[in-house]
Amino acid sequence: MGKVLVFGHKSPDTDAICSAIAFADLKNQLGEEVEAIRLGDLNGETEYVLKHFGAEVPRLVKTVANEVPAVYLVDHNERAQSADDIEDVDVLSVVDHHRIANFETKAPLYYRAEPVGCTATIINKLYKEAGIAIPKTIAGLMLSSIISDTLLFKSPTCTEEDVKAAKELEAISGVDTQSYGLDMLKAGTNIADKTAEELISIDVKPFKMGKYAVEIAQINVVDTDDALSRQAELEASINKEIDAKDLDLFVLAVTNILTSDSEVLVLGKAASAAESAFHVTLDNNVATLKGVVSRKKQIVPVLTEALTK
Amino acid sequence: MGKVLVFGHKSPDTDAICSAIAFADLKNQLGEEVEAIRLGDLNGETEYVLKHFGAEVPRLVKTVANEVPAVYLVDHNERAQSADDIEDVDVLSVVDHHRIANFETKAPLYYRAEPVGCTATIINKLYKEAGIAIPKTIAGLMLSSIISDTLLFKSPTCTEEDVKAAKELEAISGVDTQSYGLDMLKAGTNIADKTAEELISIDVKPFKMGKYAVEIAQINVVDTDDALSRQAELEASINKEIDAKDLDLFVLAVTNILTSDSEVLVLGKAASAAESAFHVTLDNNVATLKGVVSRKKQIVPVLTEALTK
Repeated sequence: MGKVLVFGHKSPDTDAICSAIAFADLKNQLGEEVEAIRLGDLNGETEYVLKHFGAEVPRLVKTVANEVPAVYLVDHNERAQSADDIEDVDVLSVVDHHRIANFETKAPLYYRAEPVGCTATIINKLYKEAGIAIPKTIAGLMLSSIISDTLLFKSPTCTEEDVKAAKELEAISGVDTQSYGLDMLKAGTNIADKTAEELISIDVKPFKMGKYAVEIAQINVVDTDDALSRQAELEASINKEIDAKDLDLFVLAVTNILTSDSEVLVLGKAASAAESAFHVTLDNNVATLKGVVSRKKQIVPVLTEALTK
Repeated sequence: MGKVLVFGHKSPDTDAICSAIAFADLKNQLGEEVEAIRLGDLNGETEYVLKHFGAEVPRLVKTVANEVPAVYLVDHNERAQSADDIEDVDVLSVVDHHRIANFETKAPLYYRAEPVGCTATIINKLYKEAGIAIPKTIAGLMLSSIISDTLLFKSPTCTEEDVKAAKELEAISGVDTQSYGLDMLKAGTNIADKTAEELISIDVKPFKMGKYAVEIAQINVVDTDDALSRQAELEASINKEIDAKDLDLFVLAVTNILTSDSEVLVLGKAASAAESAFHVTLDNNVATLKGVVSRKKQIVPVLTEALTK
């Protein structure tokens, strides 16, 4: 078997980057030739993480079929979130913790999904099942993935298995999870130097829900007013995105990592579906979702339900 | 959590039945309330297996949402192969060894697929990972699954992991794999007492390939002439099936378990796709596929390729 590329989703977050690096390390230790690459720019949090552990930044690519016949996916499976030419390569394996949708293969494959908070938690098991030791730096990156995806264990997506994996990775990496974790999360909340266009694309994911094209973006902050004071320019950028991609719905969730609440800014012709999904009334296109921090567990399922019935 | 049902695909084969029974046992040992059920009649081979080990025949059901809100799937994932009302329940987990297609969930789930020859090979790992002992009878059923799916290790779908699992299960069950295996396979090849309608539905699977509706049936024999001498009545039954379901293609593979070759009987308006897929010319709707015994590995991928390009 020749070289294989491994990558997480577009608009990569810390788990998409660090789980690709970890999976490549595991496969390379097992004797394969695997390179972790990325499908988009690093966000501020992930930059902080890679710098902290002195890890190399994966190479940015747009297409993969021009390089390899087959790939490994981590932290995603839906086509719209993957490489532009994902249809043109064989997917040999997937390690993921999201719903399965718009994913199809011609042949059997290795698919490992578990309903845990973070891909790195599953990769931690794969290392153990293969009897391979996790290098210290890789353990730090995997711990960072878990901190990021679970917002330091506060998200409802966080499971006992994530907490257990984080403890094991803390021991290997020698990192103090609480103090490092808060610094790392805060590094991702600096939005002052970002344009509105950047803010809605730092962590955006497209979804096909029933017949509707939906995008859900999320930004983490320590003060939601920092973001909402820029509502007019955010709306202009979102409407441009809606027009360009003919979207039915765009949801921007501004999540306060200290209070664990989100303000959502909702635009598009299917906006009323968001109101019925969350039992809220939009006021000037905005509503508060108390206790909502997880796109995957608290936003995607209820919106999907509302848009497919 | 209330009771959960677990089941394999429609037109169940030995793996679909025995892996459901084994998975239910594992979950019940872990403290859950799980019942293995079946979506169709037992074939002759599976009847032989259950009788040999004195195992209970799972209850036959058509729909599941009237009984439970959530289910476990084994040995399949595609909607067309599942319960008629699979859309109305939550799929909590899938253990499978097939391609992934026409499968979608609203929320994250446990999904464990590996490109091995048999679901029971994966369930063997799940028992070990959970630290649960496999009861002697269940080990016999799981070994039967592996023998059935790999045609006693002769199919190209058979992997080293299947052979390894079979050895472990042989030791637990106390069964002599070779002699028991041949008896078991032969029990599934008695076609004299079956109507043509039964023969094309013993082991049939529907597929959506590109825009085409396809069904692929397979019967195991020790003499292909036994089946092909009945070509006229088989064609009449197949054409009735094509009309009733508006199929584009129906492939009946008659597989000789001793020589490991198949005769295929191909009908439907997309029949020429089968010719280009297998590089054969149909003679009176029939062609010989040398060395082809696996629908999953040697028929589905090449037909999918031919019908989607």
